[in-house]
Order: sequence, then structure tokens, then C-alpha cells
Amino acid sequence: MIYLDNAATTRPDAAILAPVFAHTAEQFYNPSARYGESLGVAAELKRARESILSTVADVRTHALVFTSGGTEADNLALFSARRGNVVTTAGEHAAVYRSAMELKSRGIDVRFAPIDGGGAADPDALLSLVDEKTSLVSVVHVNNETGAINDIAEIARRVKEKNPRTAVHSDGVQAYGKLAFRLPDAVDLYSVSAHKIGGLKGTGALIKKRPFTLPPLLHGGGQEGGLRSGTENVFGILAFGKAAAEQFKELVPRYERTVRLRDVLWAALDKEIFFRISPEAGSPYLLSVSAAGLRGEVLQRMLDDRGVIVGTGSACSSKNPHSRVIEACGYTDKLADGVLRVSFSKDTTEQEVLQAAAAMNGTAKELMERLNR
Amino acid sequence: MIYLDNAATTRPDAAILAPVFAHTAEQFYNPSARYGESLGVAAELKRARESILSTVADVRTHALVFTSGGTEADNLALFSARRGNVVTTAGEHAAVYRSAMELKSRGIDVRFAPIDGGGAADPDALLSLVDEKTSLVSVVHVNNETGAINDIAEIARRVKEKNPRTAVHSDGVQAYGKLAFRLPDAVDLYSVSAHKIGGLKGTGALIKKRPFTLPPLLHGGGQEGGLRSGTENVFGILAFGKAAAEQFKELVPRYERTVRLRDVLWAALDKEIFFRISPEAGSPYLLSVSAAGLRGEVLQRMLDDRGVIVGTGSACSSKNPHSRVIEACGYTDKLADGVLRVSFSKDTTEQEVLQAAAAMNGTAKELMERLNR
Repeated sequence: MIYLDNAATTRPDAAILAPVFAHTAEQFYNPSARYGESLGVAAELKRARESILSTVADVRTHALVFTSGGTEADNLALFSARRGNVVTTAGEHAAVYRSAMELKSRGIDVRFAPIDGGGAADPDALLSLVDEKTSLVSVVHVNNETGAINDIAEIARRVKEKNPRTAVHSDGVQAYGKLAFRLPDAVDLYSVSAHKIGGLKGTGALIKKRPFTLPPLLHGGGQEGGLRSGTENVFGILAFGKAAAEQFKELVPRYERTVRLRDVLWAALDKEIFFRISPEAGSPYLLSVSAAGLRGEVLQRMLDDRGVIVGTGSACSSKNPHSRVIEACGYTDKLADGVLRVSFSKDTTEQEVLQAAAAMNGTAKELMERLNR
Repeated sequence: MIYLDNAATTRPDAAILAPVFAHTAEQFYNPSARYGESLGVAAELKRARESILSTVADVRTHALVFTSGGTEADNLALFSARRGNVVTTAGEHAAVYRSAMELKSRGIDVRFAPIDGGGAADPDALLSLVDEKTSLVSVVHVNNETGAINDIAEIARRVKEKNPRTAVHSDGVQAYGKLAFRLPDAVDLYSVSAHKIGGLKGTGALIKKRPFTLPPLLHGGGQEGGLRSGTENVFGILAFGKAAAEQFKELVPRYERTVRLRDVLWAALDKEIFFRISPEAGSPYLLSVSAAGLRGEVLQRMLDDRGVIVGTGSACSSKNPHSRVIEACGYTDKLADGVLRVSFSKDTTEQEVLQAAAAMNGTAKELMERLNR
């Protein structure tokens, strides 16, 4: 099986996680209790927290709130906006988009900046929506459907220049552990997820600048500094820590390797069939293409039968007819229907990519012939 | 080590969870995707959902929403109240209490029914607070600090009799997998947690009557029937399914066994030192006692040094000076300060209980002598 839907979720690294699991099954104590064994678990959570945080920020200036995943982190960030207006983009993940729509239903003025054909937000258009009443700006770091990279450092800097009281959030789920960067000073809140980098589903975090205060979504025992109550998902968090350490080990060489894989894939695809949606300057970890006139889900199933797993739109919003984000890129229904998203992990090989390209070309031709018969 | 803080968290059953972990590491696909492998994972989630649900309810009349734990389940239930007043008790877990206080800060009239010395809610007093504007009643099933059992079937029935439009929620975290019961017809929402019955921290669920609608707390990809977005914690959920199946296997014999253990413990404790807080008719899975004039945390640490782990107040609200719930039971500060909570699992042995009792007697005497010196 060739698995190329790593933007949906990655295979957890069993060699890393199995010992963490075995350890957690023994050191199972509730980290909120006050006996030595619990304090030991609490200390391990602290180490994981600092280890994850330090991959992109300084533990002295930033804090990290563990959540049940990227979606909860995005919700926690979005619902910190309680007044005025919120500015976001048409290229956001459903977790940001749906939270923004919920804010709208509560009377907040929500403004969407347009995105270009590759899925990147237009900074000037976005900035023009920011005013003295903007409480929050939320811009995805790497678009999960096209791989477009938004320059969040520059956007955040310009937002603060225009309104220093505006909070800036970025959904970093597809960027974290893939792009080499430090969290820009003007970004207040940043969402990350464990299961996109070899950790487990059910764990994520919201990274925040230390002075930044936000109301909790979950109320109770006061865990996570009062910002996120509920007994900590200890195993998921420790696994996240190990996965992040592994993922960041060779971030830059892996990035360069993935650029080559992405380019090999694109070079091997039949340009008579596949139109490239992902921008040249996008994250190499995903390549979205469209076979106009064909249906992505049908191609996806045919490829699955041939042992190649790729994505279509965002798995997280797979219940929609076609992707809201691809539509916002300006493509016709025909192109929006035919999207395949091929996404890589640190373990993807060139051999797999070449086989996938051949299968994609072959499957698309087969489907076209079938439809023309 | 004798571990008797099972109301805070239980040791996960590694023999059950290890194969689930190994399987999930292979079947790691995102259940929201549409290829065969993902549909397989989605089918396993469905099996776990129905298996857990069927332990206390009928899958035709009830549905189950997986959450990140009991706290999130309680929050999801409480924040379904958006108008009028909410009636709850002074004996609730922090997840319900803090959510209720948040509702209060948003302008909802929140009313607390008193509890008796054993921690049980007074049904008549509670009913007198319910009126035509009551949107939600929330009553804990088993008090997590005293073990008091509230007759939620009878309370819910009387609430509906008084106001059929009032929703009834119960936090069942300390009851689920311990008491033998089916979810009463008049209960609309019921919270459960995995890590109190051998599952993992970070997984829980809100069980609801199928027709009951509630607004989501987490917005995004529309997982869990739109009620709880975010990629599912597949490993935690499958582990929860296995743990629940194991826990329910011999529920009644284990209950009876635990009654004996609780009675053995109480019989072996020095009545000159320990005052019993837990009611006779409470859940046998926990016994709260108080050594008036001593500090529970100090006793707890001394016991830990002797290899016996017990709780004090609720681990989930361990940052408070002393327990809000024990205070609400009407005890003096002196008694509230001296609380130890001893809680059992299905694996606790009589030998452990006898050793714990001896250690508790010895430690308390030692501390009293030290203080009187």
C-alpha cells in the first residue's frame, strides 16, 4: 500500500510510540494529584510541553496549552474574539471557518479576505478589512488543501501596525514540523496537531504568547493553567512530544527531499489530464491537482483498488459536495470536482511517488475511456 | 505500591490495550476519508460506539458523542442551556460546577440544590428550584468525593413531571461501569469517562437521547454527527470500547466484592481517628473519611512514603484550599481539612485494603503524636 494522504493523518511511528505507551501504562497516575507518582507524571507533561514549544518558540516568551487536537486549538483561538469584528480568509480549515461562522451567528462581524488561485490570502485585501474594531485576525499558515504558504510574519506585523490591540492567530497544523520557522513576534496564537507529524489523533496544542489571555472553552478542574480543564491525555501528549522531537530532527534536509519528491510527482503526471492547483512556492508536503471532468472521489477509489491512497478535498470536511476552499480559489465546478490531494510524510520514497504518478495517469485514462464509451 | 485512588484515574489494562494500540498503529487512517481503509476505521469506531452505548442504553433510542473526556462531556451538556434558569446541586464535579458558574456569568440564573452530610442532593429541595423557565437540570449520579448516589431516575422523572421541556443531565463518570443500571427514560444527557474504568485519559462521551439536540462546543469538520468536530481520537475510543466491555463483564459480582472491600476497610479503620463521610448507601467504589485536626495532604504524603496511594479531595480541583463539596456537606474546616478518599478498582484485593487501613491508622497516630509533641 502506498499511503499519500499524510495531510489527513500520518502513520504513527510505532517504534517511538510503543515504549511511550508501555511507560504510560505503568506511570498512569493522574497528574493533578499530589503524591510523588503524580508529580512525576506532571513533570513528564512539563518536559513534553517545553520540548514541543521550544521547536518553534522560546519557553520564556511563549506558553503551550494542550488540547484534543488542531480543531479544539482553532476553536479556543477563535472564541477568544468577543467583540467588534474578526478578519479571516476564504482559505481556512473548517475548524476556523465554522468557528468564524458561529461567531457570526452570535453577532460578531466576520470578514473573509479572498484567496488567489493557489489558495494564498491576498495580504493587501486582508489588511484593508482590519480596522480599529478588529479583535482577531486568523490566517492559516499552510493551506491544507493547496499547500499555499501565507507569510504570517508579514501579515501579523502589518495587522499590529494598523491595530496593535488586534490578536493574531494562525492555524499551523500543516506547517508545524514541516516548514523551518520560528513563531513570529506578532503572532499571538498558533494551532498545532500531533497526528499530522507521527503522533496520535486526539492531541494538539494552542501555542500562545505568555501575556496573551483568553477565555477557556472547557471549564472544570483548572488544568492547563485554567485555560483547558479536563484530565490531561497523558499518553497522547507524551507521544506528541516524542513525535515532534523525531520530526524536527532533520527538518531542513527532509524539506529539501520532499521538494524533490513533489517535483518528481508533478513531472511524472500527464499534463493533458492533470491541472496543478498547488502553487510553485507552496509547502512541498502536498500537491493538489485536478483532472477536469472526472470526479476526485471516483479516482480516489480506483487508486485505492490499485494500492495507492491519496486524498481529495480536506478529509475533515468530507461531508460537503465539493471543497469550499477550492471554490474560493476561483475554479469551475468541473475543476473543483476533479481534485486529488497527494501529501507526503518524512518516510515517503521516490519509488512510491513514481508508482503513484503512474497509477494516477492510468486511472484517469481508464475513467475517461469509460465515460467516453 | 498499593494504589487506592481509582476515582482519580485507574491503571489501564495493558493486556487489553496493547493489542488495540498495535492495531491502531497499523490501521491509522483518518476515519473521515472515503477510501476503504478509512471506512474500516470508521466501522471500528461505530462498533466501539455501539458497544459502549449498549452497556447502559438502547442504541435505537440513544446516541453517543465521543469527547476528550468527562469534563468536555459535562461542558457540552451544560452549555446546551441557553435561556431561563439552570438547576444543579452543591455536590457537582468541578466540570459541572465551573460550567454552571460560566453560564451564570453569561446571565443565566443558576440555582444550587443543597446536599446532605453524605453528599447526596435533597430531591425535594432540588425540585422546588425547578420552574417553567428551567432549561436544564444537572445532577451528578455518584458524587466523586463521597460516593453518595443520587436517584437520578426518580429526580429526572419528577423534573419532567414539573416541566416536560426541561432537559436533564447527569454526570455519570463515577457511576458508569460500577453501578448496575440502565439509563432512565427521563435522563436526556449522561457523561462518562474512559480512564475511570481502565481506559485512557483523554477519552469520554456524552450519551444522549436520540431526539435531543444540542449545540456543539467544537466547530469544524462535522465529525460526531456535527456535535463534536475534530479528528476522532481513534486509539482512545477503541481502547474505551475494550475497557468498557471488560468492565461490564462481571459488573454485579464485582460490585458485591467491592461492597465487602469497602466494609473491610471501614471495619479496620480506627474510629477514634477516622470519621466516615461516605454514606452507608453510597457507591462501594469509594470511601471518604476524615481525620479531624490532621491535614489530608500530609497524611497522603506520609502514606505514599509507606507505599499506599490514596486521594484527598477531588484530584480535578486539587488547586483549591479545601473541597467545595465537602464544605457543602456541612463539615467544619477541621473535618474538611482531614479528608482522605480511598477508592477501589475491580482489581483491588482485600490484602491491599487491610494493609492500607493499617497504614492509615499508623500514619494518623504518628502525625498526631508529632503534632502533640
